[in-house]
Amino acid sequence: MKEKDSIHVFAPATSANFICGYDILGLALEEPGDEVKLTRVNTPGVVIKKITGDEGLLPTDSKKNTVGACIEMVLRHLNREDLGIEIELNKKMPIGSGLGSSAASTIAGLFAINQLLGEPLTRQELLPFALKGEELACGYGHADNVAPSLLGGITLIKSYHPLEVINLPTPKELCCSIIFPHVEVPTRAARQILRTQIELKNAVHQWGNIAGLISGLFLEDYGLISRSLEDKLIEPIRSILIPEFDQMKEIAKELGALGFGISGSGPSVVAFTKGLDKAKEITEALQLHLKHKQIGSNGYSSRINTHGAIVIK
Amino acid sequence: MKEKDSIHVFAPATSANFICGYDILGLALEEPGDEVKLTRVNTPGVVIKKITGDEGLLPTDSKKNTVGACIEMVLRHLNREDLGIEIELNKKMPIGSGLGSSAASTIAGLFAINQLLGEPLTRQELLPFALKGEELACGYGHADNVAPSLLGGITLIKSYHPLEVINLPTPKELCCSIIFPHVEVPTRAARQILRTQIELKNAVHQWGNIAGLISGLFLEDYGLISRSLEDKLIEPIRSILIPEFDQMKEIAKELGALGFGISGSGPSVVAFTKGLDKAKEITEALQLHLKHKQIGSNGYSSRINTHGAIVIK
Repeated sequence: MKEKDSIHVFAPATSANFICGYDILGLALEEPGDEVKLTRVNTPGVVIKKITGDEGLLPTDSKKNTVGACIEMVLRHLNREDLGIEIELNKKMPIGSGLGSSAASTIAGLFAINQLLGEPLTRQELLPFALKGEELACGYGHADNVAPSLLGGITLIKSYHPLEVINLPTPKELCCSIIFPHVEVPTRAARQILRTQIELKNAVHQWGNIAGLISGLFLEDYGLISRSLEDKLIEPIRSILIPEFDQMKEIAKELGALGFGISGSGPSVVAFTKGLDKAKEITEALQLHLKHKQIGSNGYSSRINTHGAIVIK
Repeated sequence: MKEKDSIHVFAPATSANFICGYDILGLALEEPGDEVKLTRVNTPGVVIKKITGDEGLLPTDSKKNTVGACIEMVLRHLNREDLGIEIELNKKMPIGSGLGSSAASTIAGLFAINQLLGEPLTRQELLPFALKGEELACGYGHADNVAPSLLGGITLIKSYHPLEVINLPTPKELCCSIIFPHVEVPTRAARQILRTQIELKNAVHQWGNIAGLISGLFLEDYGLISRSLEDKLIEPIRSILIPEFDQMKEIAKELGALGFGISGSGPSVVAFTKGLDKAKEITEALQLHLKHKQIGSNGYSSRINTHGAIVIK
């Protein structure tokens, strides 16, 4: 493909873990997500020209910002450090929400520079750069958000060394309702409260669910998916940090959610549904419940995004 | 179906765990296995008439033998305790081998009585009785041997409460080489040496492999299956009890095994292969290696048995 002078891309928000698949599963949403616009300029170097929608939270120093740092990594890798690139990042999603905010920015940046340069790398080849970006942003290079944001659909991180990512089938009617309650739970803190040791028998229960979920996705068996969406290991600990978690779970289950749990490390929660109407119904009910408790929230009802990052213009 | 006066059935040996799926996966072999013959007699009660091939190891008291006890359970459940049943058990496989010896006997008994009575129960409905039989025989009611012996193929025990067993797809060319070295490792001991606590990060690695294996089975992707057949949790501990384990693993891998590990709780080991010829080659090489080390062994090369227990006559 030909190189371009400017590019404008979108990378979707993601929900990691898929309830029972801690650190190995993730999926891409139709909305929200981040936009990155790159423009070639004559002066060599990568510069962040503008960030919108971040409420002043993100570093504008290109080396400290995951978008800038990742673009620099790719340029270095391709021996193209002579280029001048101006970045505009439009964050169209909340930061620190458990929806892969840093991952969406990272992927938007990586996908954009690769498109600008005429696709010298495949999507899979961009992944190692994304891992380094996540390490910069979160202090831990996990792939369960960047992989689905880049590739779309439901992704399995089969292993990290070597990095192997597998696209799982997406059942056609699988949708989700996502609620981001306006409380802060930094990823680092959410990881730190986890126990480093777990009971073998609980691990066995969990991998039964994981195996059931993967089978359910391949068989497009919503009953099996539903019976597998259970997390007795991480949820009991992390949910303590999320206000109204148990009540929201009860509401979602009563309304017919296939499963309910924490999105990534929270505080967002996710209900999986069969059909978008059901997702919308649950989103509305959960937001109303939080409102009664004087807790603000963002709500999203989304199909699974099967294409990942895309060029807008 | 009509009731019968006598029946003769076969239930296959099984290999539990499938390397990375501790306590949730199992698969049925074409050989070896156990045979049970039931004959109606006029005197009410269940009597063991003959056991062959067990070297005098199994109890002949019907209430203490898993075959007799399971048949009595089914008769009680169906209110048919008035019946007189004579049992002949022909053990055509080693006991305490890690090939589901007790499970094969249990399933042969259950399948036989159900056939004799004209199939009042489905195969799935026989499973809870089989779990009780395993509890009697091993002190622990696990399903990863009885499920594949009964149902055939590769089975996933998705959960125990409630019991949910799923038949996974069997890739056509998947075969295995099984070696039973003549040393004794009782299931109870093999379970007891396991740690009850494991590292969360190791558990995550393991469920990445499980998810990869399940995906590989659905995709019939032998490469992915091979990369997923790894167990860093149980094998390092249990393999200590198995002579020449590391050497056998090296030989099997060098000959092109997809994966190598412990069958159930051992001491049998299993190498998975693409194709039966490869399995035969590995079986021969491993038995030869053990012979050089003055260790006797049984060797089996088998396709995956996709039908489970069957009526012989």
